Amino acid sequence: MLYLVGLGLSYKSDITVRGLEAVKQCSRVYLEHYTSILMAASKEELEQYYGKEVILADRELVESGSDDILRDADKEDVAFLVVGDPFGATTHTDLVLRAKRQSIPVEIVHNASVMNAVGSCGLQLYNFGQTISMVFFTDNWRPDSWYDKVLENRKIGLHTLVLLDIKVKEQSIENMARGRLIYEPPRYMSISQCCEQLLEIEETRRSKAYTPDTPAVAISRLGSSTQTFKSGSIKELAEYDSGEPLHSLVILGRQCHELELEYLLEFADDRDKFRNDVVADQEFFKPAPWVPPQEDDD
Amino acid sequence: MLYLVGLGLSYKSDITVRGLEAVKQCSRVYLEHYTSILMAASKEELEQYYGKEVILADRELVESGSDDILRDADKEDVAFLVVGDPFGATTHTDLVLRAKRQSIPVEIVHNASVMNAVGSCGLQLYNFGQTISMVFFTDNWRPDSWYDKVLENRKIGLHTLVLLDIKVKEQSIENMARGRLIYEPPRYMSISQCCEQLLEIEETRRSKAYTPDTPAVAISRLGSSTQTFKSGSIKELAEYDSGEPLHSLVILGRQCHELELEYLLEFADDRDKFRNDVVADQEFFKPAPWVPPQEDDD
Repeated sequence: MLYLVGLGLSYKSDITVRGLEAVKQCSRVYLEHYTSILMAASKEELEQYYGKEVILADRELVESGSDDILRDADKEDVAFLVVGDPFGATTHTDLVLRAKRQSIPVEIVHNASVMNAVGSCGLQLYNFGQTISMVFFTDNWRPDSWYDKVLENRKIGLHTLVLLDIKVKEQSIENMARGRLIYEPPRYMSISQCCEQLLEIEETRRSKAYTPDTPAVAISRLGSSTQTFKSGSIKELAEYDSGEPLHSLVILGRQCHELELEYLLEFADDRDKFRNDVVADQEFFKPAPWVPPQEDDD
Repeated sequence: MLYLVGLGLSYKSDITVRGLEAVKQCSRVYLEHYTSILMAASKEELEQYYGKEVILADRELVESGSDDILRDADKEDVAFLVVGDPFGATTHTDLVLRAKRQSIPVEIVHNASVMNAVGSCGLQLYNFGQTISMVFFTDNWRPDSWYDKVLENRKIGLHTLVLLDIKVKEQSIENMARGRLIYEPPRYMSISQCCEQLLEIEETRRSKAYTPDTPAVAISRLGSSTQTFKSGSIKELAEYDSGEPLHSLVILGRQCHELELEYLLEFADDRDKFRNDVVADQEFFKPAPWVPPQEDDD
């Protein structure tokens, strides 16, 4: 059996009871280690907690070495652990498909991920549109295809969850060119960098997908003991010190109801200003007022 | 301390280790009991599992009796259990706000909910738009405001998660009028009824938000041992026997990539037909082809 087990967001004890039982009976335990990190537990702490060796699975192992992961999984139990839920990233559906083709039974143990736990900022999950990823800009690579998605979401009043880039086990271009397996220290995008990149692309594209005054919520260390929310305009959050990773951001859409706003105000430095920003922003992309249909005189 | 603890989708052991530790130290344990049900465990089984009495909290208790729930929570620990994740429904942010106003510390223990576990159908969560709820139609109440939301989602290529109505502890109109506290047996909407209602409203509205041939995925008993997916057109799923509850449905958008389609085909009765339906449906709301900007001759 191949178990795909979600670890949840932060603590080693965020694993479900069912997930822990599964891990304990597995002969090999892999931990996906390139799309996210577990904030409050190291590999060694997990090994002690599970009573098992944990094999870190980088992108290469998952994408090219899946035969290693699936080896003998028709005869013994293998666990593949994923921070959050196993179905955040496409590569894991790929692993499931490969297992199925080898007639290896697969069991999924779901858990919380940023995709649903983001609801704890107070905005209804119902009113989120498509999710975007913000990558680290470089001198000559500043991708902005996400801009159209924010525009599409905001045109119909929906919030946009922005996932911030993390770089784990990346090589510098020089080391890659020279074939040296030396890896850069991990990097995690901060809220301020994300907001600066948002502002830069709005400056270039100028379709008013959002403005510097558009309200947003910074979400830091979601699900951990130091979890923090900060409500502010994109411009304000570009100056915000969000502290330790991980972070994500929600760009608000028009559909923010009074109870939700009240909740967000708890996280604002200047409550009146944030309320005014939300009210002003609701005028963007507002549908035309309803006009009663004309009488048909035919 | 008020603990809001997500129970996940199905098994009593879907609670997280951290959640279970919290529940075991609480003096009162409430279970929210009107927006969803835990499929594989009864109240009695939960009580045995936690070693605690579990108080079922119906809508009235949560919305009007929150003082009961919060009583003494500044001095002792109280757990409020929610199937899925605590931030699926607005009423629970309301409970958190009330607790905060009484200076009661609140801790959230997240878990999987349909909002993220739906990813196990193989479609990327990134490409989901706003979520809609489908309620049981009655003779004189056939609400269709969700229709515009499906249209909005599909115009920009996004999938729509449809949550199917459940009726727990509802009174008949007669019993309500006579003030008799007699409750109807619980009812859970089936996939076929949902699809029939979808088809009926498309017949009325005729904006082609979707057609009878639009591809969809029926999701039944998500996260349980009898979890089932079925890929088919809305018309086909209107004839589908989805079995025991709970169910939800995904109406596909244009953004279905090859790997995702491959995954969905595993759940189709007629793979070729489903593939053709997806390809044909991708023509709906397709953006106009890109035209190179004209040379500026000024």
